[in-house]
Amino acid sequence: MTARTPLTVAVVGFGGMGGHHVDHLDELSYFEVKGIRDIRESQELLAKKKDLHVYPDLQAVLDDRDVDVVLIATPNDSHRDIAVQAMRHGKHVICEKPVAMNAAEMEEIMQVEQETGQVFVVNQNRRWDEDYLSVKKLRDEETIGEVFHTECRIHGSRGIPGDWRQKKAQGGGMLLDWGVHLVDRQLLMFPERVTDVNCTFQHIRNAEVDDGFRLTLTFESGKTSYMEVGTFNYVALPLWYVNGTKGSAVIHSWDMDGKVTRLETDREPDARPIKAGAGLTKTMAPRFDDGTVKDLPVPRVDASIHEFYDNVYETIHGRSEIIVKNDEVLRVMRLLEKAFESAETLQTVKFEAPVNAI
Amino acid sequence: MTARTPLTVAVVGFGGMGGHHVDHLDELSYFEVKGIRDIRESQELLAKKKDLHVYPDLQAVLDDRDVDVVLIATPNDSHRDIAVQAMRHGKHVICEKPVAMNAAEMEEIMQVEQETGQVFVVNQNRRWDEDYLSVKKLRDEETIGEVFHTECRIHGSRGIPGDWRQKKAQGGGMLLDWGVHLVDRQLLMFPERVTDVNCTFQHIRNAEVDDGFRLTLTFESGKTSYMEVGTFNYVALPLWYVNGTKGSAVIHSWDMDGKVTRLETDREPDARPIKAGAGLTKTMAPRFDDGTVKDLPVPRVDASIHEFYDNVYETIHGRSEIIVKNDEVLRVMRLLEKAFESAETLQTVKFEAPVNAI
Repeated sequence: MTARTPLTVAVVGFGGMGGHHVDHLDELSYFEVKGIRDIRESQELLAKKKDLHVYPDLQAVLDDRDVDVVLIATPNDSHRDIAVQAMRHGKHVICEKPVAMNAAEMEEIMQVEQETGQVFVVNQNRRWDEDYLSVKKLRDEETIGEVFHTECRIHGSRGIPGDWRQKKAQGGGMLLDWGVHLVDRQLLMFPERVTDVNCTFQHIRNAEVDDGFRLTLTFESGKTSYMEVGTFNYVALPLWYVNGTKGSAVIHSWDMDGKVTRLETDREPDARPIKAGAGLTKTMAPRFDDGTVKDLPVPRVDASIHEFYDNVYETIHGRSEIIVKNDEVLRVMRLLEKAFESAETLQTVKFEAPVNAI
Repeated sequence: MTARTPLTVAVVGFGGMGGHHVDHLDELSYFEVKGIRDIRESQELLAKKKDLHVYPDLQAVLDDRDVDVVLIATPNDSHRDIAVQAMRHGKHVICEKPVAMNAAEMEEIMQVEQETGQVFVVNQNRRWDEDYLSVKKLRDEETIGEVFHTECRIHGSRGIPGDWRQKKAQGGGMLLDWGVHLVDRQLLMFPERVTDVNCTFQHIRNAEVDDGFRLTLTFESGKTSYMEVGTFNYVALPLWYVNGTKGSAVIHSWDMDGKVTRLETDREPDARPIKAGAGLTKTMAPRFDDGTVKDLPVPRVDASIHEFYDNVYETIHGRSEIIVKNDEVLRVMRLLEKAFESAETLQTVKFEAPVNAI
């Protein structure tokens, strides 16, 4: 590949994720971070220490003709306005997730993208998580038959971090924070219509936004995906649990420890009842070492988030199709609105009409 | 305690559970198994080998004046009729679970119990499971603060055993088979009203009855209990997972391996973000060895199912109050009807009106 002329980036919102992006972009020869804009003096000082230009306000970013790309890493309630202004000033936009407060805001962003011809892309970085890609590989390669149910749990014990993520008006809460990742990935895992959405919220120490949620998607084929985030879970359940027609898999943590157990034969010797607790069970009798199942290691996948930035660069230059598509992001936002509705009404909510419906 | 005159028992239905009861009763000096009744010749032969009398039909059991107690361990659809006849013939009844096909049948049984003055008791043997008692102890002693959520999973991989449990007409399916235990115990765990019931069924290889289910109960206080049974789970998730306001606990299996993690202080040092997959997370950052949490062993509880039989004996002699109360059993059956309704309608179903409702 020939050397690529770097694109100049200004980062708006220089908190945890803004800094994380700067670290990544610094590793890439084809992006150059010129400066940052942050409303907090502490973050301005931090930027100066790193020899980054500090813009006095957003207008200064928009007016800087050097800037090709505005990277938005501010609280969620400000994404839409900054994105729209940036595109109208001829900037491409990389935006943190959740893209906006709701689907209507995303539709507005997509309208402006159409009008201006700029590239707008959301950092759905967790599509590059190895644990997710490992489960997707199990599913795609049918290692345990047809995968019909997945469970993904994000269990922490520190509550919601003490920032805007605790506030409803700024788009806080775990469903918006983590839900956008988990749902996004499950829609890629099972490329079919989602017919039903069921969600419940936890409000353990936060009455304003959910500090945990449990979300079940039912797909048209009957496949199901369960997603859970908990912030007061002092013991974590496994990160992934997967059921296929010919086996099951577990991935315990981001360290990729776990196992895949595959059914090796249709021959099914009758179970001997076992003593379990104060009773007998035949149904739950374990398999003995009879060759009917086999343990396999969790598949490993090489993945780099640099593919995201590379794809953005190439898309801006018209040489590639964007990986994180805005239609996909919009669909997730629409689905999350149904999840909020479900949590409020305590009912399962219909989402997409089945393709095969009359 | 002075020697107790044995009660004479006839076992109707000499399958797995019938045989299991005979084994237990043989260990107890205060019950004597006289004989069995089974419609299968194979089971009659088995009984003869064990020197048990074989009754030619149910009427012969009912007519045997020696018999004090009829123990019913037949398929579920026959419990009601046998129980009613037995009580009307002056027999006490120990009945396998699920007690009957539905709440109406249980109401009829209770009516006959009232009329005849006999003792009718259901073998809710899994109240004596150590894993359940361990979780109950955690809850009662507030080891991890106030327990507000429990999860209990029964994961096997052999499908439903190839017998009447596969047939709807005989009361098959996992919700009736295991659900009665799991719900019964959760109603004892949280002694308050159940406001909402949500249940989904799996029909992986059986269209007629559920070969797995997921059931969530919401209590008036907002506490929740999740119960799951799966029969095609080649890797098992932990048997118990428990969340309290000051900690969490996991019990992996009937071997009682697991751990209890308790929050030791309200001091909460701010989390350092960690790299997890392709991103950063502060919310899910683990706790470092900073003394804020402490791991404790899973509490052990001495329990013996003999307490059940002993209590039945003492209750029949008017010296004790029955532990497994018919009102409790009826409530479980009513709740299960709501679970069936929830699974059919894909909706959360209301169960009991809150005590504190206006």
